[in-house]
Amino acid sequence: MRQIPDNLGECRVAIVGLGLMGGSLAMALSGQCRQLLAIEPDLATRQLAIEKHIVHRIADDPQLLSEADLIVLAAPVKAILSILQELPAYQPGPAMVIDLGSTKKAILTAMQTLPERFEVIGGHPMCGKEANSLVHADSSLFYNTSFALTPLPRSTLRVRQLACEMVAALGAQPLWIDAQTHDQWVAATSHLPYLLANTLSAIIPEEALALAGPGLRSTSRLAGSSLTMMMDILETNREAILLHLGVFKDQFDRIAQYLQESDWAALKSQLAQGKSAYQNLVESPRERAQ
Amino acid sequence: MRQIPDNLGECRVAIVGLGLMGGSLAMALSGQCRQLLAIEPDLATRQLAIEKHIVHRIADDPQLLSEADLIVLAAPVKAILSILQELPAYQPGPAMVIDLGSTKKAILTAMQTLPERFEVIGGHPMCGKEANSLVHADSSLFYNTSFALTPLPRSTLRVRQLACEMVAALGAQPLWIDAQTHDQWVAATSHLPYLLANTLSAIIPEEALALAGPGLRSTSRLAGSSLTMMMDILETNREAILLHLGVFKDQFDRIAQYLQESDWAALKSQLAQGKSAYQNLVESPRERAQ
Repeated sequence: MRQIPDNLGECRVAIVGLGLMGGSLAMALSGQCRQLLAIEPDLATRQLAIEKHIVHRIADDPQLLSEADLIVLAAPVKAILSILQELPAYQPGPAMVIDLGSTKKAILTAMQTLPERFEVIGGHPMCGKEANSLVHADSSLFYNTSFALTPLPRSTLRVRQLACEMVAALGAQPLWIDAQTHDQWVAATSHLPYLLANTLSAIIPEEALALAGPGLRSTSRLAGSSLTMMMDILETNREAILLHLGVFKDQFDRIAQYLQESDWAALKSQLAQGKSAYQNLVESPRERAQ
Repeated sequence: MRQIPDNLGECRVAIVGLGLMGGSLAMALSGQCRQLLAIEPDLATRQLAIEKHIVHRIADDPQLLSEADLIVLAAPVKAILSILQELPAYQPGPAMVIDLGSTKKAILTAMQTLPERFEVIGGHPMCGKEANSLVHADSSLFYNTSFALTPLPRSTLRVRQLACEMVAALGAQPLWIDAQTHDQWVAATSHLPYLLANTLSAIIPEEALALAGPGLRSTSRLAGSSLTMMMDILETNREAILLHLGVFKDQFDRIAQYLQESDWAALKSQLAQGKSAYQNLVESPRERAQ
């Protein structure tokens, strides 16, 4: 049976999905592995990848997966779940599998059901842009950011080490975390902000846009995220998001009430806490490095 | 009696408040008026202004105002309201007065009570940063942004023209608007986003910051705004803000309900509307120019 190499440099890496993440990963791994393969359903994206020499070979047919030592799933969460179901049919031999999905619990549950010949681990790079296509891919996207790694008990030492090697090759730092905690935290740091940005965008009167400045642009930016990607996230992380959404609403209601009552001292005290928390956020080691 | 010049180039301009806005204005007007004067209460800011040769003369004493043809009030709203009360005592002669305050109704009401020798107009540049001191001032801050101009019926042709000339000198575009409409619109485009950013910052669990990425940074950025500036805004634009806050809450509750009920079709449809509104925002002529 084919042996899986122990280090990234000897691996044939297949990336499933050449969007912003998969494309940036391919560009960042260029020259750091034996061969770069890609599976991408979109014709225009495949053509762009060929023009830009982003990978060695690309196809829309997952048959290519049979040649891969390391398979990186870089698609929206529900697409990753589908691929995981079909994976044993396309790759009859051993392989290592990591994903870049935005939520981890559902994906790790699906990974758990893969045959033992697959050495699996979850991953989630903490970076992104509101534009999601290969056109916006950038080899430095991961540089100096956190890369969450969520192992399963079955994750072998080898797949953990290879994941670390890949994270290092991207210029990112590994952050080991369990899937449950990951999903709770990103509900607060990513999914709730998306819902706020979207809601804000929806309710700004069109005529008021004449007075839109950089503040609105910044607060609403996440509303430009891919709807497919976000719907998969909302479906697979519903409970954690509802929890943080409730906490947000309580705090927002408090602020609205002080404003309603013109209780300026109480309002200022609440807002001072928010400002202080923001300063802490900006100064957190991870953010400072960016 | 001293005559006020008809054009900016011959004007002695006094800027009250050398923070981000006043400082950037001084830098942008450098060489475009006869003399630049500044009133600034903070000693360290005055020293920095002197070191950097940002104005010709600076003092903490408003007596300097007696020499000004054009007085630009660049302070938080309530500080502007105080200065307007004292202005007749410090400037016994004629002068033109414009302010850069974030809300306009309260300021224009106060301007209305000035003696007739003051030719007044309200202004509000639609730009800014979350950092508010002279250290962050930048002569290009106003470049290619909208500059709201809110005249009173008593605003003379001359002060309207001079305001336009100043806006052009900054590289900005004038946007004529009444104070009431201005305050309604910025409640939606600026003050509500601030409250969302602050509330979000307040409720993110500290441990979750390990997974904070650029999305959170962007959505929460306005939480870094000056608390003094924001409290003045909230106090002088309370009703308009409460109105938009209510609209936001209704839409957010709708989204929360769909998520709660796992009504994915309805949720996707709402979020698609928000995304479409965001794209409209990004593509609005003012934003595109930035």
